[in-house]
Amino acid sequence: MLTQRLQQALGYTFIRADLLTQALTHRSYGSVNNERLEFLGDSVLNCTVARTLYDAFPDLPEGSLSRLRANLVRQETLADIAAGLRLGDSLRLGEGELKSGGFRRPSILADALESLFGAVFLDAGFDAAQGVVRGLFDPLVAKIDPKASGKDPKTQLQEMLQSRRLPLPDYRLVDTEGEAHDQSFIVECVLAKPVINTRGVGKSRRAAEQEAARQACEQLQK
Amino acid sequence: MLTQRLQQALGYTFIRADLLTQALTHRSYGSVNNERLEFLGDSVLNCTVARTLYDAFPDLPEGSLSRLRANLVRQETLADIAAGLRLGDSLRLGEGELKSGGFRRPSILADALESLFGAVFLDAGFDAAQGVVRGLFDPLVAKIDPKASGKDPKTQLQEMLQSRRLPLPDYRLVDTEGEAHDQSFIVECVLAKPVINTRGVGKSRRAAEQEAARQACEQLQK
Repeated sequence: MLTQRLQQALGYTFIRADLLTQALTHRSYGSVNNERLEFLGDSVLNCTVARTLYDAFPDLPEGSLSRLRANLVRQETLADIAAGLRLGDSLRLGEGELKSGGFRRPSILADALESLFGAVFLDAGFDAAQGVVRGLFDPLVAKIDPKASGKDPKTQLQEMLQSRRLPLPDYRLVDTEGEAHDQSFIVECVLAKPVINTRGVGKSRRAAEQEAARQACEQLQK
Repeated sequence: MLTQRLQQALGYTFIRADLLTQALTHRSYGSVNNERLEFLGDSVLNCTVARTLYDAFPDLPEGSLSRLRANLVRQETLADIAAGLRLGDSLRLGEGELKSGGFRRPSILADALESLFGAVFLDAGFDAAQGVVRGLFDPLVAKIDPKASGKDPKTQLQEMLQSRRLPLPDYRLVDTEGEAHDQSFIVECVLAKPVINTRGVGKSRRAAEQEAARQACEQLQK
């Protein structure tokens, strides 16, 4: 069963199977759906990630913790985690969403993942939900460079260039792909000195810019 | 001792007294202060209030839950609760803040209250923090009219008037009191039909308008 594989991937087995089902039900499917669970799960996620960062970075001020959290809980990150769990395979979607590939849409995946956190909170309490969240997010927290302080790649790149008195980058939209409801943006990040040219792809123009900036940061650090 | 009375009012006794002290220390006092605890406590508050509302209003959609929560956790409400706990008496403030009456400032009180929630979370876990939050917020949740769906008084008043095809209210700033760092605003809410005239006082113009609107709603419902 797909939901059994999902529970294994989460490292959590639901006591109340109806909560799991509800968490996987998009509003397009019916009136009993995951929207209320998402509200709850969003707050569980924010609280557990806050605690994780508080413990992991005892020297960072609250502004940095807040930026780090915003990076960790944003839609792209959640959708990536959901994709890794193959959450889309277990979603219950209405016919329209099914046909238009809703099981791949980042917003639907991210919302369902948050709903799962809310469902675990209801099913077995906060500590159980915290365990599931940490299982998924601890690997990401371990990769954080506290010196970057959770700044997004575009900000990091700008600050790196400014500190070396180099000209600022130029972002150019190269292309868009796919249909309106499922578009991808391709953006180029161009540095004049040193000459660096990177490309990012993302579900929004901003996401594509950030990805291009991240690659430029990497090249600049070499 | 003041902090003993505070712990009694909270219904919670700290295991680690240093956490309590830190939660009561404003940044003006020194470098070990409550700013990081506030970051943590804000997320504990949001999560516990989300759960309380989720359980209390099983029929409300997530948008309404979200509005209700925003009303409950806003600065004015937190500052009121903090004032009820006489939290200001236990605050540790720098000299400048002491002289300018920082122990009465809503933002400082609200932040310290959130910090306390964060400190309890660290001291004894989520369920203990949830217990403290619920002790303070359950009476407010019990007073909520789910039909109002957490809309603020100005929105409620406007909708009541529109549904009766009556003219919209007029808000007038009548006066301001106090010095710049501790001002109060007095706003009048004037309805032309039926003739209703109410006054609200608040620490911001918006808060005063909301209070005047709340009173107008009450009179209109009679």
